[in-house]
Amino acid sequence: MLLPRFLHFLKEQFHLQPAQTTLLLAVSGGIDSVVLTDLCAKAGFDFLIAHVNFQLRGAESDRDETFVRSLQTKYNKKVFVQKFDTAAYAAEYKLSIQEAARNLRYEWFASLLKKELPAGSKLATAHNANDNIETLLMHFFRGTGLHGLTGMPVNDTSRHIIRPLLFAKRNDVVVYAQDNNLTWVEDSSNSTDKYTRNYFRLQLLPAIKEVFSNVEDNLLANIQRFSEAEDLYMQAVKLHKAKLPEQKGNEWHVPILKWQKAQPLQTITWEIIRDFGFGSAQVNEVLKLFTASNGSFITSDTHRIIRNRQWLIIAPVQNEIAANIVIGQLTGPIHFEHGVLLFGQVTKPQSVTQTTALAVNVDAALLKLPLLLRKWKQGDYFYPLGMQKKKKLGKFFIDNKLSKTEKEKVWVIESDKRIVWVIGYRIDDRFKITTHTKTAVSIAFEPRT
Amino acid sequence: MLLPRFLHFLKEQFHLQPAQTTLLLAVSGGIDSVVLTDLCAKAGFDFLIAHVNFQLRGAESDRDETFVRSLQTKYNKKVFVQKFDTAAYAAEYKLSIQEAARNLRYEWFASLLKKELPAGSKLATAHNANDNIETLLMHFFRGTGLHGLTGMPVNDTSRHIIRPLLFAKRNDVVVYAQDNNLTWVEDSSNSTDKYTRNYFRLQLLPAIKEVFSNVEDNLLANIQRFSEAEDLYMQAVKLHKAKLPEQKGNEWHVPILKWQKAQPLQTITWEIIRDFGFGSAQVNEVLKLFTASNGSFITSDTHRIIRNRQWLIIAPVQNEIAANIVIGQLTGPIHFEHGVLLFGQVTKPQSVTQTTALAVNVDAALLKLPLLLRKWKQGDYFYPLGMQKKKKLGKFFIDNKLSKTEKEKVWVIESDKRIVWVIGYRIDDRFKITTHTKTAVSIAFEPRT
Repeated sequence: MLLPRFLHFLKEQFHLQPAQTTLLLAVSGGIDSVVLTDLCAKAGFDFLIAHVNFQLRGAESDRDETFVRSLQTKYNKKVFVQKFDTAAYAAEYKLSIQEAARNLRYEWFASLLKKELPAGSKLATAHNANDNIETLLMHFFRGTGLHGLTGMPVNDTSRHIIRPLLFAKRNDVVVYAQDNNLTWVEDSSNSTDKYTRNYFRLQLLPAIKEVFSNVEDNLLANIQRFSEAEDLYMQAVKLHKAKLPEQKGNEWHVPILKWQKAQPLQTITWEIIRDFGFGSAQVNEVLKLFTASNGSFITSDTHRIIRNRQWLIIAPVQNEIAANIVIGQLTGPIHFEHGVLLFGQVTKPQSVTQTTALAVNVDAALLKLPLLLRKWKQGDYFYPLGMQKKKKLGKFFIDNKLSKTEKEKVWVIESDKRIVWVIGYRIDDRFKITTHTKTAVSIAFEPRT
Repeated sequence: MLLPRFLHFLKEQFHLQPAQTTLLLAVSGGIDSVVLTDLCAKAGFDFLIAHVNFQLRGAESDRDETFVRSLQTKYNKKVFVQKFDTAAYAAEYKLSIQEAARNLRYEWFASLLKKELPAGSKLATAHNANDNIETLLMHFFRGTGLHGLTGMPVNDTSRHIIRPLLFAKRNDVVVYAQDNNLTWVEDSSNSTDKYTRNYFRLQLLPAIKEVFSNVEDNLLANIQRFSEAEDLYMQAVKLHKAKLPEQKGNEWHVPILKWQKAQPLQTITWEIIRDFGFGSAQVNEVLKLFTASNGSFITSDTHRIIRNRQWLIIAPVQNEIAANIVIGQLTGPIHFEHGVLLFGQVTKPQSVTQTTALAVNVDAALLKLPLLLRKWKQGDYFYPLGMQKKKKLGKFFIDNKLSKTEKEKVWVIESDKRIVWVIGYRIDDRFKITTHTKTAVSIAFEPRT
């Protein structure tokens, strides 16, 4: 029963000719991978077997390895075995055991595919239809977007993985193993993932079958439908993405007015920001930026989304240009990487222009809007308060004994290409309060703590 | 706790001002509708109460009616009651009791809204968040498309229905009822739908909570996400629909080559045909039409999809124009409403031109392609075999004593606007085999049984 369906599925899904194809089979020694191996042998595939010993279950891990090695004689096919210290790897890279095992396994499989098999060969895994259903249910109850309902890909072309048993229910696999007198090993451990799967398999699905007897077939049909629905969903997302962000160098600029009007807002926002390392929980933070003060921003590991007047700018964190904040009006706080600037007006200014290193007064009449808030750069110069000649910022920092780290954190305010304030250090003499000053602008810097 | 959340939800979702709004409350007398009534009264809404007595539960139905009537005094609001013979209605219209009850209820509510309330008033139902979750789960396990995962609409503008309790979990409703000393009636029946809901509520959800403790919140968040995903899905569907079918009068013409290339094929096909009364099970039949013989078709209650050379034509069933089948080549069977035509070539034709009423030979040289296969119509005439003058088909049928039904089923083959064969009755004398005939075309008609 299973072999003809296997052959039909292979032909329909992968257009593979067994006689002309070499497969790499991922074999744990469990019933699914043992049945897959037997089916591939009967179908006439050439194949190699890859087994990973994760060394997580002591003697049982070694028992499994010995069992899989025995398949070399049975099928006259080469068996590759790799031992990993999974626990150590997980600890080193701060991964869960399950993630660590997955990374190690697939990295090794990919290297084997490259080194040991003809070009164009595929890795075949033994996931069955019930694995797919269980994954679907776990995603559904844990909370998911549409993608979480589309199941495992039958044909994962980018990673050269095929899942030729995905059509078969677990029961079909068990019947085949028995009919063909196959032996296999059982994994007696009970990892969280396995516990949840077993709970769905042994408790929940049977309970759901009480009211919906065809639930398994219904869920498999759902997976097909949701996969196609996701395809259409992605077509629409692509159109929105093509219309909204404009790429400028390595930045993406999105007009806030347009972004606000995108419908459905939450999902389109999520689809735009996810490419830049933002999490779904940050969607609402982005929506808040629409009405936040100029210079406000949020960050991911790699990017920053900055409100810059009527635009949200998505820029790599290391991008100096992105750190240019245009200040069009001297109202409202201006947030930037190292803190916030507060502006005020002083109608009868004191003669002392720099009250503290963090709060200054400058002559309002001399400022030309918009101001520019930016990191200092090599070549910058200004006229330090009290001096009549210009000084390079680099030299000023040396004279003031700033450390490398301190220097890296220095920002300046610029008016019409002239530096007004080296923030937190010194204002420029050209903007100081004089007897001619009618109105002063007060600027206070509150460093981020 | 519940009242402020209720007010917030009202404002956010419906922009309703209680003091300026009259609501029609659908009140069964159960806890949800009793709590909704109390919240609406406390919020300061003007409202009327509508109660349906479905007469399905004998004395209990009357007890519920009496209870709801008592709310008139309690809240000083008018209560409308309507009795229906639900069972008789269901029998008459061949509906399930549940469908019958739904139709009766909503038709009556709509008429009340029109007659008794100010224009722009809304019907409010008392569905809560758990009703929404249970519906989601039933759809999911029964098998569904994306729409089935989007929950009940909070604001169903086309039907003037709002669901102002959809934010509240069942437990919140119970706590509110207790805190406010409300009384209500319990429905002791156990309909299939209610049984399934109770099973999900009392058995399955608690079991799922064992492994995913936040399952209810996760599913409610899913509903939000899937609603937005459906919005994007529909945007893409709309683009495909705008590109594929061309409307011509009351027909839609789709080039097969373009349709075949649409991706994802199954879902786009479904979205195109569903508007014309076709079921999702007919998607594969449409895909078969791509390679079926000319004239093949499938039908819904209202429409037919017909293969006409390189097109699929979607036409109303009663549309005579749609019954025109163009025959470009005399190869392959031609399917039409009443059967199939088979063409052959006879190089040494017999002199007998009409072998039987169902199989004829005509002079190939006299046929001009394409032929047209169509229903006969008033005004049609032909030269019946053996006659030298033309005869109206209407007259021909009277002479041959055809019944009205038989006449309605008559089709003809036309060549260059001249009738070749009144199918199943007589060929036209002008196309008969003569001594000059070199090649004959044989045409056989196999009536549909």
